[in-house]
Amino acid sequence: MNNHGQVNMTPLNYSKDRPAAANPIKIMDVTLRDGHQSLFATRGRTEDMIPVAEMLDNIGFWALETWGGATFDTMHRFLGEDPWERLRTLKKYITKTPFSMLLRGQNLVGYRNYADDVAKAFVERAAENGMDIFRTFDALNDYRNFETVVPAIKAAGKHFQGCICYTMTQPRLGGEVYSLEYFVQKAKALEELGADSICIKDMAGLIAPYDAYQLIRAIKEAVPNVLLHLHSHCTSGMAAMTHLKAIEAGVDILDTCMSPYANRTSHPAIEPLVMTLLGTDRDTGFDIHALAAINVILERDIVPKYRHLLDDTKLSTIDINVLLHQTPGGMLSNLVNQLREMDALDKLPQVFEELPRVRRELGQIPLVTPTSQIVGTQTVNNVLFDTPEERYKMITAQVKDLCYGLYGKTAIPIDAEVQQKALSDYSRGNEPITCRPAEILEPELEHAKAEIGDLAKDIDDAVLYAIYPVTGKKFLKYKYGQEEMPKELQPRSLEEGRKVMADIEKAKAGLLIEKPDVPAKSANARTFNVYVDNEYFQIEVDEEGPTPVVRPVGNAPRRIAKAPRKPGADAAKAADAEAPIDGGIAAPMPGLILRLEKAVGDDITAGETILVLEAMKMENALKATTTGKIKSINCDIGDNVKKGDLLVVID
Amino acid sequence: MNNHGQVNMTPLNYSKDRPAAANPIKIMDVTLRDGHQSLFATRGRTEDMIPVAEMLDNIGFWALETWGGATFDTMHRFLGEDPWERLRTLKKYITKTPFSMLLRGQNLVGYRNYADDVAKAFVERAAENGMDIFRTFDALNDYRNFETVVPAIKAAGKHFQGCICYTMTQPRLGGEVYSLEYFVQKAKALEELGADSICIKDMAGLIAPYDAYQLIRAIKEAVPNVLLHLHSHCTSGMAAMTHLKAIEAGVDILDTCMSPYANRTSHPAIEPLVMTLLGTDRDTGFDIHALAAINVILERDIVPKYRHLLDDTKLSTIDINVLLHQTPGGMLSNLVNQLREMDALDKLPQVFEELPRVRRELGQIPLVTPTSQIVGTQTVNNVLFDTPEERYKMITAQVKDLCYGLYGKTAIPIDAEVQQKALSDYSRGNEPITCRPAEILEPELEHAKAEIGDLAKDIDDAVLYAIYPVTGKKFLKYKYGQEEMPKELQPRSLEEGRKVMADIEKAKAGLLIEKPDVPAKSANARTFNVYVDNEYFQIEVDEEGPTPVVRPVGNAPRRIAKAPRKPGADAAKAADAEAPIDGGIAAPMPGLILRLEKAVGDDITAGETILVLEAMKMENALKATTTGKIKSINCDIGDNVKKGDLLVVID
Repeated sequence: MNNHGQVNMTPLNYSKDRPAAANPIKIMDVTLRDGHQSLFATRGRTEDMIPVAEMLDNIGFWALETWGGATFDTMHRFLGEDPWERLRTLKKYITKTPFSMLLRGQNLVGYRNYADDVAKAFVERAAENGMDIFRTFDALNDYRNFETVVPAIKAAGKHFQGCICYTMTQPRLGGEVYSLEYFVQKAKALEELGADSICIKDMAGLIAPYDAYQLIRAIKEAVPNVLLHLHSHCTSGMAAMTHLKAIEAGVDILDTCMSPYANRTSHPAIEPLVMTLLGTDRDTGFDIHALAAINVILERDIVPKYRHLLDDTKLSTIDINVLLHQTPGGMLSNLVNQLREMDALDKLPQVFEELPRVRRELGQIPLVTPTSQIVGTQTVNNVLFDTPEERYKMITAQVKDLCYGLYGKTAIPIDAEVQQKALSDYSRGNEPITCRPAEILEPELEHAKAEIGDLAKDIDDAVLYAIYPVTGKKFLKYKYGQEEMPKELQPRSLEEGRKVMADIEKAKAGLLIEKPDVPAKSANARTFNVYVDNEYFQIEVDEEGPTPVVRPVGNAPRRIAKAPRKPGADAAKAADAEAPIDGGIAAPMPGLILRLEKAVGDDITAGETILVLEAMKMENALKATTTGKIKSINCDIGDNVKKGDLLVVID
Repeated sequence: MNNHGQVNMTPLNYSKDRPAAANPIKIMDVTLRDGHQSLFATRGRTEDMIPVAEMLDNIGFWALETWGGATFDTMHRFLGEDPWERLRTLKKYITKTPFSMLLRGQNLVGYRNYADDVAKAFVERAAENGMDIFRTFDALNDYRNFETVVPAIKAAGKHFQGCICYTMTQPRLGGEVYSLEYFVQKAKALEELGADSICIKDMAGLIAPYDAYQLIRAIKEAVPNVLLHLHSHCTSGMAAMTHLKAIEAGVDILDTCMSPYANRTSHPAIEPLVMTLLGTDRDTGFDIHALAAINVILERDIVPKYRHLLDDTKLSTIDINVLLHQTPGGMLSNLVNQLREMDALDKLPQVFEELPRVRRELGQIPLVTPTSQIVGTQTVNNVLFDTPEERYKMITAQVKDLCYGLYGKTAIPIDAEVQQKALSDYSRGNEPITCRPAEILEPELEHAKAEIGDLAKDIDDAVLYAIYPVTGKKFLKYKYGQEEMPKELQPRSLEEGRKVMADIEKAKAGLLIEKPDVPAKSANARTFNVYVDNEYFQIEVDEEGPTPVVRPVGNAPRRIAKAPRKPGADAAKAADAEAPIDGGIAAPMPGLILRLEKAVGDDITAGETILVLEAMKMENALKATTTGKIKSINCDIGDNVKKGDLLVVID
């Protein structure tokens, strides 16, 4: 192959007003979305974007990514913020640079396909609230899942960016399914769909520099008239090099972050790229001093509030497991967490062996949210629960949905045997669908409006509720003062953040000790006023237990009753869970009780589902092991249960 | 310019036994030297290299960098380790891969030019102890400073790698002094000196990808028969891209680190490069799984011991100030620290303005150890002490040495006025030398041997002492049991290291509090045996001060004498320093008292030097402000003094 660079040098001019390059690379800054999503679990707050908003607007970015699925979810769920309001607020400060969002096709900003009426309403509201560019992807690259949102984007007069999810089945581009030809065909399909731009979405940082070069050349040749955008991540350590080769191959737009939010699992930094391209025909034209000024504010005033969220438990800033296994970094850490919770970390090698097999059996689907979780969780279930006689013993609801066709068309057909098994007790039927998945969905919006009633004051509230009924309703109650917002949803102050950073340094210097557990004060606590050097202290002394009888100390230490050290720990419950009970069914894995399908007193047949347990965002049905009557159900919807907790007793 | 890539693809073969590429890139792994030097202040211990030594030997690296100036210094000074012994030990585990060291030309592994006899002996001993490749540099690129070591390297039958220190006077390659032509001429000069390989030594991470491309092409064209090696750093965020363009330009050898020790201020990681080049004609041929196995050991068993040394106070893993000011990252943090210690951080903009001026006046020298410190400290001195009437009021001894010609020939002549002023009271004379600096040095080795006497058991001990007389002598006393090695020189256990890492996580979760200061126990302390739940505690209660008289609490709080909160703080001394005293001379900056040139009772004339203060490794003379007799000297050699401490009183 030919991979000659296409960048040409001109005499260097360092002025910020230097003449524009012949073909300047366009840059989308993703600091305000994927930057804090990659480093800080999407916890960035609007108030922490405002201080740099106007400065970002003045750089000359092609777009600013400000919104996405995780943003919408996290904001209302964990930050107590109205996601719609962020758009309106940022628009006040950012008047020149278009906004971009990541849209999960028919999944919108949620985790399932929504009905067409919700999809249409969502796009209309996003556009109305200030969204300009809709970066749209589907986890299966099944563009039938674009059929509702794209006309809505176009009708609103906005920019439709179509994504090709980049994935692989071998260490580098090529081989089975995901060949160069596959991606070129997808690009052509997007052009036919009317894409204003096409994005190669490499969410896992898998794309190697020379593969990017080859791929971009091929797509630019096949689809010369549509802007081509590359989105990669630094996770595997290749992205900066990939960016450079992409530029040489003629890519039009790249995603970068401001340097504090760059690198690690995030994106390449913009500043080194500005310097690299200075004086070339692809010069960004950006003023590096203006970028530096933004970084000062980010590091000094914003980062401390989020520093505690950074995963820096490894020294390495890259994750070479991505290179070894071609799977997203987040998927790998999910697998490890899941195995750890099941006390089965030693099974990791088997999981790596089973993973490509499960993926192939499930149609060799790309590994991106949510398909990476679907494949990953099923792989762990297989490794933990399968027997030599029976594979796929515990199939998650999401795998059943996938087998039914509810996510769309897989890259290759799903293994017939697995599909048949998955659908054998599937509620919607045993025969998979082949149509566009949303076609089987009834309209949802009016139903949602009726359900939420007066709590939704406008259409934005209603759409929020339609997408996130449980957490959305909770948020609306906070928003309208019907419930007080819990403390953990409220922002952390800069002072608190700086204290954490100072504490980290002190921990490094060995200057910190563990905070003692604080037991609840009893009625016997006595209060003393103490004055030290003019400083007044109120000291409360609470003797644990009754005043002891003082005895001479003998050889054998006197045994005193154990005081409860940690209020909240419930020893009795734990003991219950450990005792095996006839007809008792224990939780096979830690998780959240999502649904109870049976009630106490119900008759039940062995094999029938009693309840549904959510683990790693996947649903697992807990089935009766014997036939009889349900004697007790020891959990409720919303409970978090541990592995081994006794959930149900059948008489 | 033409910057077409030269990498060609062949069909992918992932096997670790894949056929060798046509022109595989050679890799020097620098984990064991520059890796821990960049991230952990060179504190890596030999015992922490042994667990991965054989594995590294099996990868197929062109060389392993195992030694250098900072290594030699840190080992004997801070680790209580014999630097020579490291070579011999590692050689037992690494039998196939050559060792490389960084040699500071005539400065050897120290901070000044040593006499020729010491230089010759050092090279002989390094070769004898196991060194194979001598990467040799001179901070001024004055190759006269190679004239003694190169014949010694050749005589020992070893590999001479000649360095060109890469530096700039504008944001990118070109312009005044450091043009493409400058570097090509230097490469030719190295070829003439008999270099077995040439290294572009970019210690600051300044070299931009397309500049590297251009430079490597030009040097390969001018000097086609000598191996070309590139050494860069990730500090500014360009190095991975620079590596790729260097490969395309035909560089022969690159420096990389194992991923845990890579990135930040260190070097690009090897693993993403292996994946990037897989299937190209420059494929490394390395087995990525073998690399992964090394990383597991590093992260799990080695890194925790050093984690507390990592500077992660900024979120950003890169330092874009390097892009803004073209100065090494370490130099910038030194400047900031120096200003902070002088309570003058607000003068940073003036320092950035003064820096290029001072550098130009001092002969536009490259900025690398030690010249970066020489230029940096003088700049700070000028900003802090100069008056509108007089520049260079406080000239460091090192600047005087530079002006005298003791470091070699500067890139352009030193400003005549500055030079004259610097040499006006210079001990060696007012007329600068133009010869090779070491020519004016008398032989030193026999003198050193006589001085150290029996404490040196062999020639290695003697050479160590000749290079580091003060710390070297101390080390030899530890080595031979004449003095006990202080606790702070002893290794930290893996458990201690893991506790720091756990504490960092706890600090992030807000679970730690400050360790209280522990005052010394008095004779009045009472001891109680306490038994809690069968666990025995010995509790000592020591009442502070006399038993107080209990009085009723009134409106005004009773004043009690303040107990000393922090043992060791000496309020009286601090008060002294603050009171201005007639004829008193205070420390103008924090530093170490290096020499006392006068004693109590001596007559002194205004302008005469009383003592020499070392700050930021530079020497500053403290001069009498009045004429009279020295009444008192309140410091001793080796004392660390704070800014404002009263050092001398003249009567």
